[in-house]
Amino acid sequence: MSGSTYSSVEQEFLQYYKQIESYAEAIKLMAWDLRTKAPKKGVHRRSETLSFLSQKVHELKTSDQVKTYIDELRNSENQVIKRSIELVEKDYNKTKKIPVEEYKEFVELTSQAESVWTEAREKSDFEMFRPYLEKIVAFNIKFAEYWGYKENRYDALLDGFEPGVTVKTLDQVFPKLRDDLGKLIKNVNESNNKPDPSQILANFPKEKQEQFSLKVLHKMGYDFDAGRLDETVHPFAININHDDVRVTTRYDEQDFRMAVFGTIHEGGHALYEQGLNKDLYDTPVCDAISMGIHESQSLFWENFVGRNESFWDQYYDLFLEYAPDSFKNIPKHEFYRSINEVKPTFIRIEADEMTYPLHIMIRYELEKGLINEEIEVKDLPKLWNDKMEEYLGIRPENDADGVLQDVHWSGGDFGYFPSYALGYMYGAQIKSALEQDVDIDQSIQNDDLSPIKNWLNEHIHRKGSMKEPLDLLKEVTGEGLNPNYLVQYLTEKYQKIYNW
Amino acid sequence: MSGSTYSSVEQEFLQYYKQIESYAEAIKLMAWDLRTKAPKKGVHRRSETLSFLSQKVHELKTSDQVKTYIDELRNSENQVIKRSIELVEKDYNKTKKIPVEEYKEFVELTSQAESVWTEAREKSDFEMFRPYLEKIVAFNIKFAEYWGYKENRYDALLDGFEPGVTVKTLDQVFPKLRDDLGKLIKNVNESNNKPDPSQILANFPKEKQEQFSLKVLHKMGYDFDAGRLDETVHPFAININHDDVRVTTRYDEQDFRMAVFGTIHEGGHALYEQGLNKDLYDTPVCDAISMGIHESQSLFWENFVGRNESFWDQYYDLFLEYAPDSFKNIPKHEFYRSINEVKPTFIRIEADEMTYPLHIMIRYELEKGLINEEIEVKDLPKLWNDKMEEYLGIRPENDADGVLQDVHWSGGDFGYFPSYALGYMYGAQIKSALEQDVDIDQSIQNDDLSPIKNWLNEHIHRKGSMKEPLDLLKEVTGEGLNPNYLVQYLTEKYQKIYNW
Repeated sequence: MSGSTYSSVEQEFLQYYKQIESYAEAIKLMAWDLRTKAPKKGVHRRSETLSFLSQKVHELKTSDQVKTYIDELRNSENQVIKRSIELVEKDYNKTKKIPVEEYKEFVELTSQAESVWTEAREKSDFEMFRPYLEKIVAFNIKFAEYWGYKENRYDALLDGFEPGVTVKTLDQVFPKLRDDLGKLIKNVNESNNKPDPSQILANFPKEKQEQFSLKVLHKMGYDFDAGRLDETVHPFAININHDDVRVTTRYDEQDFRMAVFGTIHEGGHALYEQGLNKDLYDTPVCDAISMGIHESQSLFWENFVGRNESFWDQYYDLFLEYAPDSFKNIPKHEFYRSINEVKPTFIRIEADEMTYPLHIMIRYELEKGLINEEIEVKDLPKLWNDKMEEYLGIRPENDADGVLQDVHWSGGDFGYFPSYALGYMYGAQIKSALEQDVDIDQSIQNDDLSPIKNWLNEHIHRKGSMKEPLDLLKEVTGEGLNPNYLVQYLTEKYQKIYNW
Repeated sequence: MSGSTYSSVEQEFLQYYKQIESYAEAIKLMAWDLRTKAPKKGVHRRSETLSFLSQKVHELKTSDQVKTYIDELRNSENQVIKRSIELVEKDYNKTKKIPVEEYKEFVELTSQAESVWTEAREKSDFEMFRPYLEKIVAFNIKFAEYWGYKENRYDALLDGFEPGVTVKTLDQVFPKLRDDLGKLIKNVNESNNKPDPSQILANFPKEKQEQFSLKVLHKMGYDFDAGRLDETVHPFAININHDDVRVTTRYDEQDFRMAVFGTIHEGGHALYEQGLNKDLYDTPVCDAISMGIHESQSLFWENFVGRNESFWDQYYDLFLEYAPDSFKNIPKHEFYRSINEVKPTFIRIEADEMTYPLHIMIRYELEKGLINEEIEVKDLPKLWNDKMEEYLGIRPENDADGVLQDVHWSGGDFGYFPSYALGYMYGAQIKSALEQDVDIDQSIQNDDLSPIKNWLNEHIHRKGSMKEPLDLLKEVTGEGLNPNYLVQYLTEKYQKIYNW
């Protein structure tokens, strides 16, 4: 997929698009800075600048000029251009279909809603947040109608995060996955040989956690000449430009897992961005294809590499160089079991890999119901708690631990959550394909993770946005979305850990 | 100078101008990031983005729209608007007078010249840099002619950095200053009681230097909610926006003076920016008026506070909490003398406060000669060394230690150097005025530097760009530029240190 032979209009179009990428670089650096370094008093003016620059991007994405390029280049014989135009046209149409005034209202609403949500969560007061959420849902319904859909209104929202994935796709896999996970969790709960993570919760100085995290990023093949590691409150990875992909992490001195597995997770995202095909730099296809595929990469490294027993067989001695002395008394296998404890929790982002998809299914069902006007916002707290009890066997005692826990809705995002569960399933399915070429355990034992990284680079990362997620999955694994790979992985791993 | 009553055109103009400030925020954050955090591989794309955003600023500054505002608002009765228009018009005219193609050529030339200069300095090979410098001088001569001047061609260049200051101004003060400094240096050289700084050059861990530097910034009244301290190679302070003014410093573990006095110096710059009148936020007058006035503020804190004996009487115990143990054996007064050693050096940025202005005068005379076509680039190395010998009594053995030491010329900047010496003279003159209201030593002894900061806030910082530098100086000190204050300060301080 070389792009060396562009016509002059194609070159012009790419030059035009490059302006968007330039604004995006400024916006992303500002966002990174706000979340890692920026002093609080400067935030107000910074927000104005962000809004100004976003407006400039919006103008470029919806101009008559871009429409002309779309019309002229829709049938280009250059596959990079053809696919670029598809992506740009989709964006153009989605943006153009929303009346400017409505979109402005929505942006103002969500920026207020986010601070209301923050306070509501602190006070565990859903009623405070309810009127905002009602308006946000109403906007999402309107937008979905503007954008259109074939079968289910929620499809229009899913499409923004996971193009090609529909309610039909999800309803084909989630019920079975839910049943299978339920059985596994039952086995875990009934086990007489549960790990005891209390030993690993020793005070672990931040600087030492950072040093070990840096070591692991190096081993993963993260390129520090094209990135860096910083501290933040809510960890993320960000491609400021394609040669500057930064990782952030959070340090909890009482629980090193936060920083170490958080760094590996974000490092996985960063390897995707660093692995994009640089020949396509500044074109619309030089981008991750979806949230779900992105998540498949972060979870791949976090779970299949970082929480793998081989990993700790190989690197526990290295870890002990940074860990507090008390870790020396923990047998390696017990340490491994402890970092893989399965235990239903109220909070999604604290969930283990077995219960996590259930958190997502709850949100998916509620979102689908809201958008299809089958349930009402006012009933959410009770519905949430009922589902938690049904799926995970625990019932939150307050809304802060329940329906108010996630920021996503306050920011206006509906249709995003399913990508997290898709990422798990994609990841396990991709792992199975990778294992036909690469022995993960052997790579770790060789202290050389490059075969894993190189395989993912070649089969996933380099392809950027040339294909839709499910097409990419089919190309890489030979089949459509199949949740059995995830179930099989979890079964094999956890029956050993919990001896059932 | 409240700006609360703007007409609708005035408001429109301010909204227009705010766009420039928004772009500037993005550009400045990118520049800060490049000099503190950015990974090297991302620099190439970053430069393209910087150039793109700079082009946007250029368009806004030279548009027909801005010309319309200038014409409409030139006679505004609102003083803030009137002065803003003066500043914007000056910028407009200067930019418009240079043909676009010539300016592009100049930008390309200087961006090449800077890397050629880097290599030439490494190899101490002036001939390598000479052709570039010749072209840069030729461009500056052309620009000066485009911009115009009354008496001396060099005035047109000075005006870019120190509006209102001319060759006439400088020629009235520099010769006397040079003679006076010469006499002082002679006294120093003949002293039988010189300090011995070897004791203070002990290994001082970076983290400890940083902790002490942070303490000092706090004491100065630097607002950390509107700024932060980071590490860099060439220290600077930068106002990313008016509520986000960052300081950077450099750590030399063998010489703590680099970081501590560097931080105080940059902190002085930052206090100026943090002290601007926030009511005028986003207007053209909410800005430092000149390089010289800026430098007067950084030097004020660095020299009159940081290198003051009272400062170390008050804070030496605090310093010892961070310093290596060996410092405990250094008597306080000897420590004070050591940080104020006077010794002619080849390199300007390593110079002490007594010899520093002589470095500047050498550059001023050479620049003036070049721009007035009285000397030629090819003769610079010899002229430089002759002047060093004449002014400072030492002769560089190579051009890296001589004519090639500064980056400024390679970047195209002529007319900048005098601001450094002006900053010294302004600073000492402002100090004398401040001392009629504030007792600097007493403030330090009270461990409360706020009277100093508040006085500078009120008399200098809040005024922003409402007045030209020499008018501001007159308003604050009651007289025009007078180098005697600097000479008097140096005499009183150093005759005690050197016991002459």
